[in-house]
Amino acid sequence: MKTLLVDKKSGDSIKVKIKDLIIGGSEKIIISGPCSVENYETMHNIAAQLKKMGVNMLRGGAFKPRTSPYDFQGLQHEGLKILKNVGDEVNLPIVTEIMDPREIENSLDYTDMIQVGSRNMYNYSLLKELGAMKVPVLLKRGMSATLSEWLMAAEYILSMGNENVVLCERGIRTFESFTRNTLDLNSVAVIKQKYRLPVIVDPSHGTGIRELVPSMSMASIAAGADGLIIESHINPDNSLSDARQTISIESLNKIVEGVKILQSAL
Amino acid sequence: MKTLLVDKKSGDSIKVKIKDLIIGGSEKIIISGPCSVENYETMHNIAAQLKKMGVNMLRGGAFKPRTSPYDFQGLQHEGLKILKNVGDEVNLPIVTEIMDPREIENSLDYTDMIQVGSRNMYNYSLLKELGAMKVPVLLKRGMSATLSEWLMAAEYILSMGNENVVLCERGIRTFESFTRNTLDLNSVAVIKQKYRLPVIVDPSHGTGIRELVPSMSMASIAAGADGLIIESHINPDNSLSDARQTISIESLNKIVEGVKILQSAL
Amino acid sequence: MKTLLVDKKSGDSIKVKIKDLIIGGSEKIIISGPCSVENYETMHNIAAQLKKMGVNMLRGGAFKPRTSPYDFQGLQHEGLKILKNVGDEVNLPIVTEIMDPREIENSLDYTDMIQVGSRNMYNYSLLKELGAMKVPVLLKRGMSATLSEWLMAAEYILSMGNENVVLCERGIRTFESFTRNTLDLNSVAVIKQKYRLPVIVDPSHGTGIRELVPSMSMASIAAGADGLIIESHINPDNSLSDARQTISIESLNKIVEGVKILQSAL
Amino acid sequence: MKTLLVDKKSGDSIKVKIKDLIIGGSEKIIISGPCSVENYETMHNIAAQLKKMGVNMLRGGAFKPRTSPYDFQGLQHEGLKILKNVGDEVNLPIVTEIMDPREIENSLDYTDMIQVGSRNMYNYSLLKELGAMKVPVLLKRGMSATLSEWLMAAEYILSMGNENVVLCERGIRTFESFTRNTLDLNSVAVIKQKYRLPVIVDPSHGTGIRELVPSMSMASIAAGADGLIIESHINPDNSLSDARQTISIESLNKIVEGVKILQSAL
Repeated sequence: MKTLLVDKKSGDSIKVKIKDLIIGGSEKIIISGPCSVENYETMHNIAAQLKKMGVNMLRGGAFKPRTSPYDFQGLQHEGLKILKNVGDEVNLPIVTEIMDPREIENSLDYTDMIQVGSRNMYNYSLLKELGAMKVPVLLKRGMSATLSEWLMAAEYILSMGNENVVLCERGIRTFESFTRNTLDLNSVAVIKQKYRLPVIVDPSHGTGIRELVPSMSMASIAAGADGLIIESHINPDNSLSDARQTISIESLNKIVEGVKILQSAL
Repeated sequence: MKTLLVDKKSGDSIKVKIKDLIIGGSEKIIISGPCSVENYETMHNIAAQLKKMGVNMLRGGAFKPRTSPYDFQGLQHEGLKILKNVGDEVNLPIVTEIMDPREIENSLDYTDMIQVGSRNMYNYSLLKELGAMKVPVLLKRGMSATLSEWLMAAEYILSMGNENVVLCERGIRTFESFTRNTLDLNSVAVIKQKYRLPVIVDPSHGTGIRELVPSMSMASIAAGADGLIIESHINPDNSLSDARQTISIESLNKIVEGVKILQSAL
Repeated sequence: MKTLLVDKKSGDSIKVKIKDLIIGGSEKIIISGPCSVENYETMHNIAAQLKKMGVNMLRGGAFKPRTSPYDFQGLQHEGLKILKNVGDEVNLPIVTEIMDPREIENSLDYTDMIQVGSRNMYNYSLLKELGAMKVPVLLKRGMSATLSEWLMAAEYILSMGNENVVLCERGIRTFESFTRNTLDLNSVAVIKQKYRLPVIVDPSHGTGIRELVPSMSMASIAAGADGLIIESHINPDNSLSDARQTISIESLNKIVEGVKILQSAL
Repeated sequence: MKTLLVDKKSGDSIKVKIKDLIIGGSEKIIISGPCSVENYETMHNIAAQLKKMGVNMLRGGAFKPRTSPYDFQGLQHEGLKILKNVGDEVNLPIVTEIMDPREIENSLDYTDMIQVGSRNMYNYSLLKELGAMKVPVLLKRGMSATLSEWLMAAEYILSMGNENVVLCERGIRTFESFTRNTLDLNSVAVIKQKYRLPVIVDPSHGTGIRELVPSMSMASIAAGADGLIIESHINPDNSLSDARQTISIESLNKIVEGVKILQSAL
């Protein structure tokens, strides 16, 4: 069997560079921001505080994949523009989800990294399009994707010539309904041992419960993750989506401090 | 909460017409053919025999979603042409999978129904594009999609004005590894009781084991399914993909006979 | 690897005899009764009607395994006596669950078949004790037992010298929460093809929803099951446990008729 | 609804005392030893080294629940005696699994804590028997038990008057087959926030892969676990059972050191 490009046997560990930021290097990185881009003012408010506390990258959803066609679908192109402006002003790189291969080229003017969401991990048309660009990709694990399928989705991108892929564990679907998903940190340990790609963890979707995010952030870093992506908001209870799992700026600040302490201990 | 268009409270049960064929009517329908379109001769050979035994529709994959980027990805546009020619010659309507929203418009010249595969059930860009056309859609259940998410995926299509949707149960992902998937016939019973859409079953993917296809075909019809989609081949062991679950023409013939007997008994 | 006693390679298909009843023979059998034995009068009332419509065996729970220690735990020994009396009066054999190996010997005076419930499928002390007796055993599949583990649980009993084992598929635990469990009829098809033991289906626990029991009963028989075990009650809504999945006597009667029609068609 | 005894609303966090050891206090505890007790010499060898490095408690299986009746079932009573002797000699308390309620009373002479294994978490006869004793219980989570069912299993013991219960997360069964189980550290975070019982983690069964045990040990402690139970052996590859997930004494030593560092950092 062919050795995969994602396999450590194929080469050195991959470091993904986004402006001055390196994912997969010696520093643990933190990506944060609201689930959805809601308006310029809220986004700017959040971003300014994240920047101040040392968050490395800004996230925010412009195109929102929603289970129901009747739910808020995001501000779309308007959301991309807000993200771009806010990112420039506070000097933070941006990651946002794109779902449609026809939107990728245009979105490159607005975002520094493109997120492939869980629902689109098997969307091979999208993956091939991203493989043909050199844009950094944040590839979330599918809701019930095996580790092997997830790595193969990354391989689709690498095989087209784009090595700028960061994996993101965000929990898998199990029988357990107390938490929204079951965060699978085993996957992080496997990836760090056998594969070349950086991997970060999303404890917001991985638990679905605000109060669990701090503990699972620490656990993720201890398992070896290269960083975290966390949903935060200046007013979490009023988030337009995912309010139940979004944490406050104060809570995020404690996590940022905790990660530093943990990193120097490990 | 809004009553969904897929709910029986919103209207009569939907019958999907494809040329002379009606899915969701009084007759149980059978769709069959090889996993992949391999070449004109094999496809024609298979189709001629399916037509003779009373199969109602021809399936064959031109664009193949494969876990590995290094596996055979289908004959693509060449495959669509073969399907179109063979369908015309043997006088059978065609269903084939399209994964990329950019391919839909062109594919309408070649196929009578478009399949949304399991991997793309959450691909809302694709679903919206299909909603804007009036093309009949075969919507497979996602590998780990809840019944509710699957119906919501259908709702995306209906809400855009296209009611020509047939659901297809194809098994869900569980801890059981003896079979490829766990065929969930509970879902068929629920859909027939509470929702307006026709539902067929794919016992080939639902079991992954050739020898189980006849029993599970009978079980599907007894559970209330409107029909079956079954992978068959004149030489199953040499199928280019999914050989292990593909049945012979002779075996399919027995299922077609069995369905008739079962239908008149029920 | 050793050929298992449950494997068809080890011998003929096993028929389990209980008084005049044969499970695994040419006739499909129906076992029914309430979830819990509630009192003599209700049990007798139900049993008399089941006998009249041709049900083959009476079920009723005396020792109830409940998730909460504060829920009704069954009438216990008093329940066994009621079952015994009612069974004698209406001339129906009895099956009831025993959970504690220390209760088995005593229970043989009261019941014709001992049920091992889902929660105790891995209770090897209990299985070994049942293997040492010659009592017929109804072995339910564990909530998340693989087919292989389930067959091995049966092998524990056979390997001790007791071949009187009937398997019972009752649904497995998956991410799907619309139904209580996911009824896995693939397992029935596999068992009938490769293993020696009779297998029946429990569509009551397999769906958890009263309205789905008729369809899934038909599907189970069509998949090849040797019979059904169904929770029924003269007043389903007032059942002391599992009310939501318990069907009425009238509904059961239709299923009994349906099974006959299906059996003669197949 | 009744407030459960396991709920923090019912009282202070529970500390379980076993000789001089406290589980659930300020110190993280480590339990280790081989999967099975194999013979006196090996057990003594292992135990002496564990004691030296600061391991707090000795584990070893005497009664082994095996999927196949033909696999090694443990040294049984002979194993209990070996454990007792070795524990006395090296001055370490002992935990071992008992599966049969009839064995509990006798086993109290040999072990300091009784383990309820995953397969017996729903064995309510066993739980009630343990509730009637005052013996400390290590209650492993069932393979597919929800958090709620697991806590209810503990409640069975507490409701009988025995508060000496330590929970043990050991992974749940999912579709992922790369690892033996999916370690669910979300559960640890929930228990520490809302429930009174100590909880430890078993990364050996939780991963099934030796190389992942160190990372997942660190992740468990970071998630808030009160300790770890890890399978170790002086010659892991020759373990009579679970060799693939058993680590060496050297590897365990590094974990013990790592836990100390982590604990002082957190």
